[in-house]
This record gives sequence, C-alpha cells and structure tokens, in this order.
Amino acid sequence: MTPPSLSAVKVLAFDVFGTVVDWHGGIVREVDAMGLGVDGNAFALAWRDGYQPAMARVMAGELGWTRVDELHRMILDRVLEEFGIATLTEEQKRHLNKAWHRLDAWPDTIEGMMRLKARYMVCSLSNGNIGLLADMAKHAGLPWDCILSAEVFRAYKPDPATYLGVAATFDVKPHEVLMVATHRDDLAAARACGLQTAYIERPLEFGAGRRKDDSPQPGNALHATSIIDLAGQLGCSG
Amino acid sequence: MTPPSLSAVKVLAFDVFGTVVDWHGGIVREVDAMGLGVDGNAFALAWRDGYQPAMARVMAGELGWTRVDELHRMILDRVLEEFGIATLTEEQKRHLNKAWHRLDAWPDTIEGMMRLKARYMVCSLSNGNIGLLADMAKHAGLPWDCILSAEVFRAYKPDPATYLGVAATFDVKPHEVLMVATHRDDLAAARACGLQTAYIERPLEFGAGRRKDDSPQPGNALHATSIIDLAGQLGCSG
Repeated sequence: MTPPSLSAVKVLAFDVFGTVVDWHGGIVREVDAMGLGVDGNAFALAWRDGYQPAMARVMAGELGWTRVDELHRMILDRVLEEFGIATLTEEQKRHLNKAWHRLDAWPDTIEGMMRLKARYMVCSLSNGNIGLLADMAKHAGLPWDCILSAEVFRAYKPDPATYLGVAATFDVKPHEVLMVATHRDDLAAARACGLQTAYIERPLEFGAGRRKDDSPQPGNALHATSIIDLAGQLGCSG
Repeated sequence: MTPPSLSAVKVLAFDVFGTVVDWHGGIVREVDAMGLGVDGNAFALAWRDGYQPAMARVMAGELGWTRVDELHRMILDRVLEEFGIATLTEEQKRHLNKAWHRLDAWPDTIEGMMRLKARYMVCSLSNGNIGLLADMAKHAGLPWDCILSAEVFRAYKPDPATYLGVAATFDVKPHEVLMVATHRDDLAAARACGLQTAYIERPLEFGAGRRKDDSPQPGNALHATSIIDLAGQLGCSG
C-alpha cells in the first residue's frame, strides 16, 4: 500500500505536555519557588508519573469522566504526603496545582507554530482540559487556531475517539491530519487510526537527569529536532 | 439582592453569528457571487430562518446530536427547492454550505476583542460547530483565546448546559462570566443561569430591509454600540 502523501495534510494536531511546553522545567521552577525543602526534580517526576495511571482509572470506568485538573490534584495530594509535606494551605495547594496552567513554551514553539499556521489548521490534541490549555496558551503565548482536548471527546489519548475526533471536527479524512508529538505511543496510536505522524525531539522533557531516547522510529512521516525544523520540512519557512 | 459586580468578571463569552460576524452580508455576497438569479437578501433570510427550528428538532430529541454544518445543509437543500434552484452540483452545494465558515467580522470586532483579551479570557459560545468556528476565526482573523461551542457541551443555547458549561470549563462561578450577544433571548437565558450579560447593538444583523430593535433592556449589566464600546465601558482602552 502506498503511504499517504504529506501534501494531503490540512490539519496539524499537537500533543502539548512535553511537545509544545516544558512541563518539567515549569513544575520544578514552581515547586522550588515555594521553598518546600524538597528536590524539585524528584517532585515533578513523581507528579507526572501519576498521570498515566490516573487516566487509566478513568478509561477503565473506575472513575467517571474527570478533568485533568482534578487528576493532577488527586496525584498532588498523594505526592505531598509521600514527600512529607503537610504544611500547605488549601489555597497554596490550589495554586500549585495550577502550575500546569503556567508552563512555558520551548524556545522554538511559538515561531514554529506561527510559520505552520500560515498553511495549516493548527490545533492542540492534549489530555489536558480545555481551561488548562486556554490558560496555558494565554500565559505562554501559544497561537492555536483551535484548542482541542480530550475533554471535547470525553476520552483520553490513546483512545481512537480522540484522533478520529480531530478529523471529524474539521471534516477531513484521518490521513489529512498530522499528529505531532514527542511520545512514541501517542504517535503509534494516531497511526493506527490512519493519521500521519511527526516526531519532535525533546531530549530534556524529563529534565537532564532522565534523558529520553529521541532516536527516529519507523512509521513516522517526519522526524524533527524542533517545531521550527518541522515547519521547514513542511516548506513553511520564516 | 445586590446585583453581582462587573469587577468579578473573568471570562467573556461571545455569541458569534450576528454579534461578532456579519452573517447576513456574508451569505448575500456568496449567493450573489454564484449568479443564481435569486434575491440574495431573501435567500439569506430564508436560510437563517430555518436555523432555530432545526436546532429545536435536535433539542426535542427528534434528531440526534447534529453539527450545525449538517443543519445548515438540511436547510439549504430545502431553501434551494423553495427558490426553484435545481442546477447546483453536489460540490457547489458543499461550497455554498461552507459560506458560514467564511463570514467577515464587523468592523469593530477585532480591535474590540484585542483590547478585551488583555484583561479577560475571551471565548466564543456559539451554536456553530467547532470546525466552523475555527475556519471562521482563521478567515476573519478573530483572536479567540478559546473556541467554545455547543458541540463541546452537546447542547444548543439556550440550554443551561451551555452557559454553565462555560463557567465549569474555566473553573469560575457563573457571575464571573459575562455573556455578550446581540440577541435578547440568548442573554435572558444566560442571566437565568447566573451569568452577567452585555448587549451589543447590531441594527443591520438582518440587513437594511429588516431593521432590528436594539433598544436597551432591563437586566443587562452593559449595553454597547460595538465591541470597542464594550471594551471602553470595561476600562480596556486601546
């Protein structure tokens, strides 16, 4: 079978945490700023490590549909206990939980997105809830054409309802959507739904202490070192 | 009971068709451009007149959840028949149906939104589907922070799920949302859910031949002659 052509692509759907914004750096910064006397790196990794299992509980039906803000809070309460922190007020916990709304973009993100917007519909496809993604876009200056979230489809990635939901939202065929992410499992699930895929290298996603394997994998239509590099490969120069 | 203060407002939710974009002028322009030999004004009004009854069929359960693109097409097929037009190809009908994706902003819209974005979360709350609203935003240059649609809540305005859905999306109280529209029924339904409301005068919404009564009504926290005027009244100057 001939692989679909990149010239068919009309919509770019971006994973957000790690791909577009630096969640590790942002969470470490906010944890350190609170002066909790803990290792910010370990705290950030523990918080993020609770993410997939929490979504799995929702998708297994153990929890009803839950926004990621609430999942983050459930995990935060447990991580605070594990790190022996019992001094935070409810207001401080609420503030810390919204650190995920205040993450910064990687240095190449905004310029790359601006170039891509000139030719494509550029949307998010994140498990983060809509309010989180909108706050983050305002904070970080992310120029989305449209914020799409698991919340719209009432399913978390890698559920096919999310990838196929993007195509349905824009009335295009699955191969007319290019899923962009720094996570192999996300891209593999998108390909299984007929989307085309692009991998973005983010070796520091988990910080300098847990370096990621960003080597090219078969199956991806594109492999890029940054979103600016992706724009260049797609012929969207500055 | 003391009315809620405008200083509590954090989110501005905008109706779109008529309030932000000129649907009448846009549809007339596209119908006229197709050279169908019909009165573009009468055609546009007939098409729009089918809108509320079509949504009512969905909300009554007579039709399952249906995107407005599909409702527009159902109405278009009937209006074409009423106007005695049998010559359009399927491709021409699809193109004409997407005229709603290519509407232009009123002259004050973009500047007003830009001013308001500096202080508020500025989102749409339209019965239009997400893809329609995203295409329109790209076409008209509408600088939304976030596109919210009936499609997100699987209910059309004036269903309370839409107005309360905006507050829930952004984790704010209903009175922290200001609903902005040029339609009294939309604003009355929003107020019934506890939102604050602002009316925007759009006397030419239905064209020069069906002038609208835009006189101030009790209940609205604000009444403005344009979105720039609204920004001024909220202290967001240029």
